[in-house]
Amino acid sequence: MTDADVVRADYVHGYSGRESQRLLDQATTLAELLHWDTVFPTGSDVLEAGCGVGAQTVAIAGASPGARIRSVDVSAQSLQAAKTRVARAGIRNVTFLQADIFNLPFPAHSFDHVFVCFVLEHLRDPVGALTTLKRLLKPGGTITAIEGDHGSAYFHPNSVAAQRAIQCLVDLQAMAGGDALIGRRLYPLLFEAGFKNVMVSPRMVYVDASRPQLVDGFTRKTFNAMVEGVRNDAIACGLIDEAAWDQGIRDLHRTAEPDGVFCYTFFKAVATTRASPSSTP
Amino acid sequence: MTDADVVRADYVHGYSGRESQRLLDQATTLAELLHWDTVFPTGSDVLEAGCGVGAQTVAIAGASPGARIRSVDVSAQSLQAAKTRVARAGIRNVTFLQADIFNLPFPAHSFDHVFVCFVLEHLRDPVGALTTLKRLLKPGGTITAIEGDHGSAYFHPNSVAAQRAIQCLVDLQAMAGGDALIGRRLYPLLFEAGFKNVMVSPRMVYVDASRPQLVDGFTRKTFNAMVEGVRNDAIACGLIDEAAWDQGIRDLHRTAEPDGVFCYTFFKAVATTRASPSSTP
Repeated sequence: MTDADVVRADYVHGYSGRESQRLLDQATTLAELLHWDTVFPTGSDVLEAGCGVGAQTVAIAGASPGARIRSVDVSAQSLQAAKTRVARAGIRNVTFLQADIFNLPFPAHSFDHVFVCFVLEHLRDPVGALTTLKRLLKPGGTITAIEGDHGSAYFHPNSVAAQRAIQCLVDLQAMAGGDALIGRRLYPLLFEAGFKNVMVSPRMVYVDASRPQLVDGFTRKTFNAMVEGVRNDAIACGLIDEAAWDQGIRDLHRTAEPDGVFCYTFFKAVATTRASPSSTP
Repeated sequence: MTDADVVRADYVHGYSGRESQRLLDQATTLAELLHWDTVFPTGSDVLEAGCGVGAQTVAIAGASPGARIRSVDVSAQSLQAAKTRVARAGIRNVTFLQADIFNLPFPAHSFDHVFVCFVLEHLRDPVGALTTLKRLLKPGGTITAIEGDHGSAYFHPNSVAAQRAIQCLVDLQAMAGGDALIGRRLYPLLFEAGFKNVMVSPRMVYVDASRPQLVDGFTRKTFNAMVEGVRNDAIACGLIDEAAWDQGIRDLHRTAEPDGVFCYTFFKAVATTRASPSSTP
């Protein structure tokens, strides 16, 4: 979901538990749901590892105008798109660099924070990547990792055909060495990489007809569009035939009808390089 | 999950969005997660339809000591257990009545609120039940409905065997006329029953080793115990053989190990008998 085209919406945080719950329940964009509680202090050095086309960069850099964001990606083409997107948003605190996440040209202890979003899902060795990123953090530095989990998708009306189409994405990602079910694994991955104080906060996207912006913006244009994007690959690889695929896609779109419901969960984790005295071990 | 033995823990609500998110993330009991934002005004008349053994009754009555709670259940045995539980908790604002949810001995417009939790999942006609309950509400009255959804369960390590064991519960509930996947359907069910301003708020239980109270209290003693409880029925009905069942249970318990993760989502809906002028249609 690296290319999810999300735009951060300014909104006022709630000042009570009830109001905050309501705001979370009503979040109308992915960026609100994922990034509303990510703010980097003025003067801090932040590495965004794997910025892709900059969809998350505009959200995090816009929310932390005083932080110095260093966004790297292995793809020159993606970086160019990210630069354009950030410039168009009027954001000036981001510099870009083309580099591989396993071979980043920074000395140890260069950053206060590392931000890695929708990247680990693509890697054969996510623990290795996290271990590498940990070395770039100053002592006491923090990491924020965000991933989706396609196994968290369920809906009404329920449909075996729709689940089969989603499973094609999971299988294709596995064939490419990745893991589309990685969201649920953030805790063990960060723990294995040696991070401390790992705190995972699931961010569930719940969509029904009372939230028309999410029906259109998430169910149809983000999730269903992502599934539809692998049609040719899924059929070419023999994972599914055309009729079964088309039925699955029809059933997925059925969940965006007025009596439909769609659920998906992202996982956001924060962790530190060393244990804090106040935390449980 | 009507018999889930949950105890409401007093805790201070957060006064900022961030603090509230943290508290929600750290909720250590089901009652905190489900009921923290359910408070009935002093002097209001509340119907708890299907109180079972009173597990939820102590939570909602304890949080709203000035409300008059009328708790009904079809089972005399369950009611006796509920009475004992409520008395032991020192709660005095609940009266009990044995009655069927489709044939309640109250005049129309008797209540300000209806509370129905872990009941609709057992009914052949949940919309009929909701329509009946709606008639008992005063004009402008509200309903709170809470249900789980066994299709929302996923975990690490992932396991086909564990999912098969869970599917046995779903199949058994369907054979009994119920729907163990009803949580995701609260919006369309309430809408179809004629309720307005339907607002669904999913409550995800996320469990990893950093939350040992939930590992023990939810993964092991609530969810896994519930699945284990249908072993004999599942095997007797031919849904699964003993070896496959035992493997599924082993894999479910594996998710409670230090590197395991377990996810489950409850759905809480509130709705009103008539549209409010400020709401979207």
